[in-house]
Amino acid sequence: MENERWDVLLDLAINEAWKYQFLTYPNPAVGASLVIKNKVFVSAHKKAGSPHAEVNVLWDAFSFFHKTPKFTDSFEIHEYLIKHHNNFFNEAEMFVTLEPCSHIGKTPSCANLLKVLKPKSVTIGIKDPIKSHSGGVEILKNAGIEVNLLNDKRCFDLIEPFIKWSKDKFIFFKLAQSFNGAITGGYISSEDSLNWVHKVRDKIDLLVIGGNTVRIDRPTLDARRVNGKAPDILIYSKNKNFDKNIPLFKVKNRKVFIEDSLEEINDYKFIMIEGGENLYKKLKDFVDWKVFIVTPKIFDRINYKLEDSFKILHVEKRDDLIVFGK
Amino acid sequence: MENERWDVLLDLAINEAWKYQFLTYPNPAVGASLVIKNKVFVSAHKKAGSPHAEVNVLWDAFSFFHKTPKFTDSFEIHEYLIKHHNNFFNEAEMFVTLEPCSHIGKTPSCANLLKVLKPKSVTIGIKDPIKSHSGGVEILKNAGIEVNLLNDKRCFDLIEPFIKWSKDKFIFFKLAQSFNGAITGGYISSEDSLNWVHKVRDKIDLLVIGGNTVRIDRPTLDARRVNGKAPDILIYSKNKNFDKNIPLFKVKNRKVFIEDSLEEINDYKFIMIEGGENLYKKLKDFVDWKVFIVTPKIFDRINYKLEDSFKILHVEKRDDLIVFGK
Repeated sequence: MENERWDVLLDLAINEAWKYQFLTYPNPAVGASLVIKNKVFVSAHKKAGSPHAEVNVLWDAFSFFHKTPKFTDSFEIHEYLIKHHNNFFNEAEMFVTLEPCSHIGKTPSCANLLKVLKPKSVTIGIKDPIKSHSGGVEILKNAGIEVNLLNDKRCFDLIEPFIKWSKDKFIFFKLAQSFNGAITGGYISSEDSLNWVHKVRDKIDLLVIGGNTVRIDRPTLDARRVNGKAPDILIYSKNKNFDKNIPLFKVKNRKVFIEDSLEEINDYKFIMIEGGENLYKKLKDFVDWKVFIVTPKIFDRINYKLEDSFKILHVEKRDDLIVFGK
Repeated sequence: MENERWDVLLDLAINEAWKYQFLTYPNPAVGASLVIKNKVFVSAHKKAGSPHAEVNVLWDAFSFFHKTPKFTDSFEIHEYLIKHHNNFFNEAEMFVTLEPCSHIGKTPSCANLLKVLKPKSVTIGIKDPIKSHSGGVEILKNAGIEVNLLNDKRCFDLIEPFIKWSKDKFIFFKLAQSFNGAITGGYISSEDSLNWVHKVRDKIDLLVIGGNTVRIDRPTLDARRVNGKAPDILIYSKNKNFDKNIPLFKVKNRKVFIEDSLEEINDYKFIMIEGGENLYKKLKDFVDWKVFIVTPKIFDRINYKLEDSFKILHVEKRDDLIVFGK
């Protein structure tokens, strides 16, 4: 056999997790898949406080084969599965991008749940790098579950933002461009991408933006498309003179800094820089990741120009491409 | 349950097929996946004359669970499976992007093989649009196999080149660009992409290129990186004066046309246009697809500029992105 391709189950978990990258803040992006009775289920952790990836995929599988209540709360699902599993999962093979958690936080411990449900095997992308969360592997092994611990580079990439914002801060640069590199001359991205940006703005602590963008576009920079919270704003500008009627200054419960340094960033954990050519040039070696929203349109307009290169971590194909680079 | 996600098996088959898009000429790109004993297998048709997707995935699965000879020939695999399957596949669920073929060509009929192996179910992306190939669904149903016939738009996209080159011809425009739309100033694509282009050149009948590119780059335009055959060349140019020492003129067993019309194209079935801004402008509404090789590098160079938009059919994430658009 040319390729041993049942590892596609981990690929599926990784790809599903990327769909919720940034949106799980302050939690990591985690995906899981499960094969049971020749059916494949895939899910992810979608939002802090909501069920972990493992719980979502276990519940999807259980609900497919059984009549179940419509639970969305982790504690309810854990309790229900522990009471009603009836050894249903004993032949299941599970794949998860990150070691199942051993600690009880906003949701109960996944490792303790798996210990009871006893799937045949759990294949794990990487160990949890946060000491206080790890220990899941031991719990599973002690329960007699076959554990395959991989050391998959892609699963590290997936949680790099989490590692960084947990320890200190994570900063990414977002740029919206046409397919041929035009970034000026009105809205470029699709509605779908604009909604995604608002979802991300709802999660970040601080949004950094250049002075000229504020003066020319007169933006609001909130998350109104998703009824989300508006992040604090740092206008990175030497010239501190702005028309205070620009909508971004009118948003309630938001701080706005106007500074010619980036020092304010140090008080925040999850920071997006929305910029163009100038900010990109200045900050390209300063940021952790770059995220490009690339629209499948070619314009008769000039491109942004600078020298840079990056590794593509992931591409989400939506109406536009969302390209995560490092 | 929020999503019924066992349809990911078809997604896997579709994505696997795209890896071999164009390379299966004159056959269609087809992918297949199979779940058996809680293991997932995914494969594709890789090359005309080699086993079909269904046969590859059946053989992968059978070889994983049994000691088997190292067969690569379709007839050998068919014969071996028919003789030794011992009802192994009866619980298997198969997914295939295109209706299993009913006709015997260079390889035996997949529908007849499945009829014997009798998997539990076969889920099919689309019916075979070529009348003489269809009939697979009926063969499977008559054998008592559960058949789910979808009508999946993505499976049509996958075989659009095949439909076009079977009936008349398929033409695509290939452009290699930096992430910010620069296309001039030396090699832009990765080694991996250059190799891919050579693999494609080995399959196409005719390569169309602009006169200036020939004069400036003095290319060979063959498939030497993969020891493949060099396609015929149409230099699309008003000025018919070329230095005959340019390497492309020295390649054996190749026709080279120098024309200011595209009429020669009508004698060919699978045509790639490798061009830049000018050819793109001229031919953007003439071609069936556009294929962009997008390198994750940003250059301090000017972009190509024109007005166009397309739908992204598929993105292959390799060292570069290969973006298939329509």
